[in-house]
Amino acid sequence: MTLVPDAGTAGETVDAMMDRLGRQARRAQRRLAQAPAAVRTDALRRAAAHLKAATDRLMAANREDVAQARGGGATDAFVDRLVLTPERIAAVADGLSAIADLPDPLGRELARWDRPNGLDIARVSVPIGVIGIIFESRPNVTADAAGLCLRAGNATILRPGSESFRSAGVIVEALQAALVDAGLDAETVQRIPTADRAGVGALLKAREHVDLIVPRGGKSLIARVAAESQIPVLKHLDGICHVYLHESADPAAALAIAVNAKMRRTSICGAAETLLVDRTAAARLLPLVIDELAALGCELRGDDATRALDPRVLPADEADWSTEYLDAILSIRQVDGIDAALAHIDRYGSRHTDSIVAADTVAVDAFVAGVDSAIVLANASTQFADGGEFGMGAEIGISTDRLHARGPVGAEQLTIYKYVVRGTGQVRP
Amino acid sequence: MTLVPDAGTAGETVDAMMDRLGRQARRAQRRLAQAPAAVRTDALRRAAAHLKAATDRLMAANREDVAQARGGGATDAFVDRLVLTPERIAAVADGLSAIADLPDPLGRELARWDRPNGLDIARVSVPIGVIGIIFESRPNVTADAAGLCLRAGNATILRPGSESFRSAGVIVEALQAALVDAGLDAETVQRIPTADRAGVGALLKAREHVDLIVPRGGKSLIARVAAESQIPVLKHLDGICHVYLHESADPAAALAIAVNAKMRRTSICGAAETLLVDRTAAARLLPLVIDELAALGCELRGDDATRALDPRVLPADEADWSTEYLDAILSIRQVDGIDAALAHIDRYGSRHTDSIVAADTVAVDAFVAGVDSAIVLANASTQFADGGEFGMGAEIGISTDRLHARGPVGAEQLTIYKYVVRGTGQVRP
Repeated sequence: MTLVPDAGTAGETVDAMMDRLGRQARRAQRRLAQAPAAVRTDALRRAAAHLKAATDRLMAANREDVAQARGGGATDAFVDRLVLTPERIAAVADGLSAIADLPDPLGRELARWDRPNGLDIARVSVPIGVIGIIFESRPNVTADAAGLCLRAGNATILRPGSESFRSAGVIVEALQAALVDAGLDAETVQRIPTADRAGVGALLKAREHVDLIVPRGGKSLIARVAAESQIPVLKHLDGICHVYLHESADPAAALAIAVNAKMRRTSICGAAETLLVDRTAAARLLPLVIDELAALGCELRGDDATRALDPRVLPADEADWSTEYLDAILSIRQVDGIDAALAHIDRYGSRHTDSIVAADTVAVDAFVAGVDSAIVLANASTQFADGGEFGMGAEIGISTDRLHARGPVGAEQLTIYKYVVRGTGQVRP
Repeated sequence: MTLVPDAGTAGETVDAMMDRLGRQARRAQRRLAQAPAAVRTDALRRAAAHLKAATDRLMAANREDVAQARGGGATDAFVDRLVLTPERIAAVADGLSAIADLPDPLGRELARWDRPNGLDIARVSVPIGVIGIIFESRPNVTADAAGLCLRAGNATILRPGSESFRSAGVIVEALQAALVDAGLDAETVQRIPTADRAGVGALLKAREHVDLIVPRGGKSLIARVAAESQIPVLKHLDGICHVYLHESADPAAALAIAVNAKMRRTSICGAAETLLVDRTAAARLLPLVIDELAALGCELRGDDATRALDPRVLPADEADWSTEYLDAILSIRQVDGIDAALAHIDRYGSRHTDSIVAADTVAVDAFVAGVDSAIVLANASTQFADGGEFGMGAEIGISTDRLHARGPVGAEQLTIYKYVVRGTGQVRP
């Protein structure tokens, strides 16, 4: 039991604090679920305005967060994720406005049918409930995640990393002010009022109050959350994405897709980490790809056959096939046809996103059917693994889990359903 | 580490056994997922035939299970759930044939759209993967659950209660013989080869091998599984179902629905436990209901206002409103209108199944929107909370969870989806 240092009832234990937050969230969510779409839309628009109006206060809080991070020896990359500018704040506010413009995901009739006894059964989308969001240094997650949850009628309990604690606090205040202006409860969006690690533990065991946990951040955070949580978690751990160049691949498409999948942004989960190439087509397809990647500064690690094609390719070892570099490094392996490619992806992949480049539609269909990943592409870059690119408007993350949602998790995936059954006096025989 | 007493590699620890079963299941499921619907249908039909053919062997094994249970002092109700007859075995086999006839839930295009860049995105149903089934005394769950999972392309690892261990073993053998005949792997359906409690623990932490746990049985089993599992669980704990008689209710419908919801079968989760009645209509609606229920031997427990109507009504205390009797007992409470009814259901209900009886469509709509349960009915009995009654053909259970599936879990709910994205060489700018 740790005392909460900076908020809540004085002397409140972390467990008591979480119980209080949980009850508040549940009550706020019940009211939110009954609010019309227009009220949630209004709250999101007001949130954008409140956030812009809070720019100075948010910048000041963020400067404190940044100073503390720098003092703690944070890397430049870390600070870059943490730091806010007026332009970044405006972009976050615009993101809230964009979420306000999304089609409402609640009350959709997902299915409807009649029974021989006259019962009319409808499956209707409803909110999940209370969602716990655990994230690290990016303060914008506060608004992005809470906003998307709000669109779908869910209350949120946010647990920002200690690094972005002050920044997240100001953003939550702006969101809460907007909620109240819109006639909703401030507690629809709450931040755990302690940066103490104990706050995470208390959230992850609050089964009574929280219906879903969404961790956002690096692999070690997500692995810890998944291992510790007593609440269902929607997540992905690894993005070991493959591009497979089938022997029927058009060389120009192969070049463009392989290079884009690896190099457009190397740090995202949809970036390709391994290039598989049909052995029969390697001499035709690989040299151009290798030239281009080498010119872009990408380190190449390949099997012996690939190294024989180009001395710039370093030797790959077994660990390379299951490594998510998140960097300008690509492993390359030649395979004996599509079955070998499928077997490689099955063994080493992370069931996130994989792509085939092929003109042969039989090969495309076999790949699409045979790869058990959240996203399987044909003749397109793995970097399209993104809710925005899917047309979802916004995403809270990508799931490689096998329940509820796979791939990009947008507003629609933050809902569940209930059955509405209308009768005329039916009883069961 | 407990030694496996009766199967597996000699001296194998429970953890090693589970690792072996898990790998086998994963491999078998990958093959199953690639098998056409016709092969899965064929396997289910063959399973029905194999099961019928194994009647004598199954009866013998069941007699041993029953003898052991009786020797252990099991109640008659317990033995009734456990005991098989040739008729019950034939019914289980017919159940497998019925599952074979279900529309195939795999490969359905759940959504499809184009992007401005020409990408064609489809959301396609696929199996969940490997499902662990933990159940108690009813041996038929072995075939029902494994069959439904098979229809949806999922492998199963079954953990029958120690009471039905031998019976379940014979059923699994019949299913495995059918799988092999159909060209699939026997390990698509496996039974944990130990009745030791340690088998449950090992299954519940096999996160690498098992994607979903479905517990079937009493509340204490399910609560234990939910608390201990490191794998997502689909379940319901309580079925505290309400019938609410609105003041606009037709008296005949109110009588029929209240009596059927309580008394058709009192032991199922969809049985009503509490009757709410608008105070303004209590004198008009309740006496007939009370007469009929009393005549049927139902114990009645009510608030003071209801007791004033009829001396046969015993006093209800606070605990009654949150008790799932699963017996011929009904609690009755008068409420001041629909908002009070909604508040009662929100506070005491278990979000399983609730029904309003009302002629007033405004009241019906308010109830349907305001009750946050898996199944909300209007003018129909809560006893329709059943996959068969919903037209699903079969169900593995009912979920009151808030992720993936709510209400009856049938073959369709035992699937998830992947995205298939087809392009013509698109790269992300």
